[in-house]
Amino acid sequence: MYAARRERLRERCAAGGSAAALVSRPANVRYLAGAAPHGAVLLLGRDTDLLLHAGPLAGRPENERPDESLPTQVLPGTDGDPAVAAADLAASHGVDSLALEEHHLTVARHRAIGSVAPRLRLTDLGGAVEQLRLVKDEEEIGCLRIAAEIADQALSELLESILVGRTERHLALELERRLVDHGADGPAFPTSVGTGPNSGRGGHRPTDRRVEEGDFLSVCLGAAYRGYCCEIGRTFVIGTSPAEWQIELYDLVFAAQRAGREALAPGAACRDVDRAVRQVLDSAGYAEGLPHLTGHGVGLENDEDPQLAPSAMGKLDACVPVTVEPGVHLPGRGGVRIDDTLVVRPEADGGPELLTITTKELLAL
Amino acid sequence: MYAARRERLRERCAAGGSAAALVSRPANVRYLAGAAPHGAVLLLGRDTDLLLHAGPLAGRPENERPDESLPTQVLPGTDGDPAVAAADLAASHGVDSLALEEHHLTVARHRAIGSVAPRLRLTDLGGAVEQLRLVKDEEEIGCLRIAAEIADQALSELLESILVGRTERHLALELERRLVDHGADGPAFPTSVGTGPNSGRGGHRPTDRRVEEGDFLSVCLGAAYRGYCCEIGRTFVIGTSPAEWQIELYDLVFAAQRAGREALAPGAACRDVDRAVRQVLDSAGYAEGLPHLTGHGVGLENDEDPQLAPSAMGKLDACVPVTVEPGVHLPGRGGVRIDDTLVVRPEADGGPELLTITTKELLAL
Repeated sequence: MYAARRERLRERCAAGGSAAALVSRPANVRYLAGAAPHGAVLLLGRDTDLLLHAGPLAGRPENERPDESLPTQVLPGTDGDPAVAAADLAASHGVDSLALEEHHLTVARHRAIGSVAPRLRLTDLGGAVEQLRLVKDEEEIGCLRIAAEIADQALSELLESILVGRTERHLALELERRLVDHGADGPAFPTSVGTGPNSGRGGHRPTDRRVEEGDFLSVCLGAAYRGYCCEIGRTFVIGTSPAEWQIELYDLVFAAQRAGREALAPGAACRDVDRAVRQVLDSAGYAEGLPHLTGHGVGLENDEDPQLAPSAMGKLDACVPVTVEPGVHLPGRGGVRIDDTLVVRPEADGGPELLTITTKELLAL
Repeated sequence: MYAARRERLRERCAAGGSAAALVSRPANVRYLAGAAPHGAVLLLGRDTDLLLHAGPLAGRPENERPDESLPTQVLPGTDGDPAVAAADLAASHGVDSLALEEHHLTVARHRAIGSVAPRLRLTDLGGAVEQLRLVKDEEEIGCLRIAAEIADQALSELLESILVGRTERHLALELERRLVDHGADGPAFPTSVGTGPNSGRGGHRPTDRRVEEGDFLSVCLGAAYRGYCCEIGRTFVIGTSPAEWQIELYDLVFAAQRAGREALAPGAACRDVDRAVRQVLDSAGYAEGLPHLTGHGVGLENDEDPQLAPSAMGKLDACVPVTVEPGVHLPGRGGVRIDDTLVVRPEADGGPELLTITTKELLAL
C-alpha cells in the first residue's frame, strides 16, 4: 500500500522532470512510509526509496513502525539534519535534480541542503503529496470510522455525567481521557468546551468558568486513530428547558449545517457547499462575524484540504472526508456550533456518509 | 518589560545593518510581544513596532493578551499570511531592508515575502531573539518556579495513589490532569511514563503496559505556566524492596546526575557539564547508548538553548535555567532516569538553584 503511494508520487515527479524527491512534512512522510519518526524524511529515488531519521524506533507503538519494505537509515546522534543527509546521499548516487517541499522546509534548511550538494538542482515538490492524500482509500476511511466511534463514545459518556458546577477545563480534560480510554492515539486537537457566553465560539480554549443552569454548552473534540483525525461538535442546553432564543438559534445553525451536509457530492464546488451553509445564516441576519471556514478536510492532519470557504477553489471527489461545522456566537450571550465529519459519496452509494452519529437534537442536560 | 526586550533586539538589528526585523517564530513573538496569537508576527521598525495576526484575540486567557503598549493589526479572514502583510507594510513605509528568521520561515513564505516587496532587501535575523531569551529575568524565573511547584505537586499526588495494575497511558493522563488542576497552562510536553522494560528510556511514549511488582517506574513530566516550561523526571521501584541491580543502577545514575548539577556554574562550558555526567556513566561501562543530550535549556520552549552535549559550544551564564537528565536503559530490563530543572547561579548566591525539589531517594512504592 505504502509502496503503491510512493509509486504514484514517483510518477508525478518523473512527469515534473525530477529524478528524485525529498519528503519532509511529517504527515506526508507518514502517508508514504507508514510512520514518521521525529524529524524523519523520505528520499524517493528513481527506483529505490529510503527513510532517514535520527534516533531509534524502539518503543514505538506497532502502528507507528514504518513500512517493512522500506529501507531505513538511522543517523547517529541528533546532530545531523536527515534532510541534509538525504540530499548528500542523493548527490553521491549521481542524482542531478531533487524536488523539495518548499512549503515545509525552512530557508535555513534549504540553504544547508544546497551547500552540502551544490551540483544538485533543487526544485519544488509543492503540494504533490497533499494532493495524493485528498482522496482516501477504504483503509484510511476505516481508521476515520473508528476515530469517529471513539469521539462519539467519549461524548456520550460525558453527557451521562453531572455537568453543572464543573469547569470548561475539567470537562475538556475528561473528554480527552475518555478518548484515550477508548483507544485513541490521543486527541486530534485541543478539546474545546465553551459554556454560557463562551459557547458557540470556534476554537474556544477552555477556561475555569463553571457550567450553570440555563447555559448553552458547546463541545468540539476530535480523536486520532492510527494518525487519522475525526472531529465532532455539539451544543447542548443545561437545565430543564431551553429559552426561546436558544431554540431559535439552535434551529438556525442546525438548518445551516444540514444544508452543508446535503450539498456534499462528488463534483460539487467547495465554495458552493460553503455558500449553502452561509445562505441560511445570512438570511437570518448573521452574515457578520461568521467563521472563515464552514468546513475542512480531515485525514492524517485534522485540518487539511479541501477547505469549505468562499475563496476555496476546486471540487469535491468521492471518498474525500470533510467536516461541516457552522457556528453562530452572540457576544455576551453565547451561541451554537454543530460539527460533523462526513465522507463524500455518490448519490448511488447513498450520498454523504455520516461518521459522527451523536444526535443533533437540542438536548437539555 | 516587553518594550525593553524589543529595544534590545532593535539595537542588535541596527548593529547588523537592518532597518527593520520580522519575528515569526511563535516563542520569539511571545517573548517580545507578551502573546503569540495563532500565526502572529512582530514587525520591529526603526521606532515603532506592530503585532500582526489573523483572527480575533477574544476569549484568550488574561496572560495571553499582548503587551498593551504594542499596536496590533488584525488581518481579515485567515487567507493572508501576516508575514507577507508585514513585509508589504514595511516596504510601503520606505523600509529598505528587513531581517527575517530564516530558521523558521519556509522557503515558500520567504518567496511570497520577496515577491510582495521586491525592492526590500531581505536579510537573516538568525537566532538573535533566541540569544536574548537565554538569560532569564526574575519574572521569568518566577514563572519557572511556579511551573516546578506544579510539576512537583502532580508527581507527589501520583505517588500517594495505587500504581500496580495501572497502565503507562493512564498514569500519564492522570499526571497531566493534575498539572492542570494545579494551575498549569497544560503539560510542557507529552508526559512520559515507562514501566519495567520501558523504564529509563528517554522520551518513551506511554503504552498499555501495566505496572507490576518489582518494576522500575520512570516518569518524566513538565508543567507550562504562563508559557514557561519546567521539567522533572524520577524513577521509582514498585513493591517492597528494590533488587540489587536496581539499587546499583540507581546509585550510578544518581551520582552522574549529581555530578552534572554540581558542574553548573556561570562561565562553565556546556560540554564540560555534559562530560561531568558522562564520565560517571562511562567509568561504570555505560559509554554506549547514552542519550545525545544530558540536559538542555528551558523557558518559553521546553527544549531550548543551551544544550548540554559533547558537541555543544558556549558557556553557561547566571540566570540560565537548564535540565540535568541522565538516564541508563538496559534493553529488556529497564532503567533509570533522573531529571531536574535548575537555574545557574554564582557560588556567592549559593550555587545552582534547584527548582524541582521532589526527593531523589530511591523510593519503593
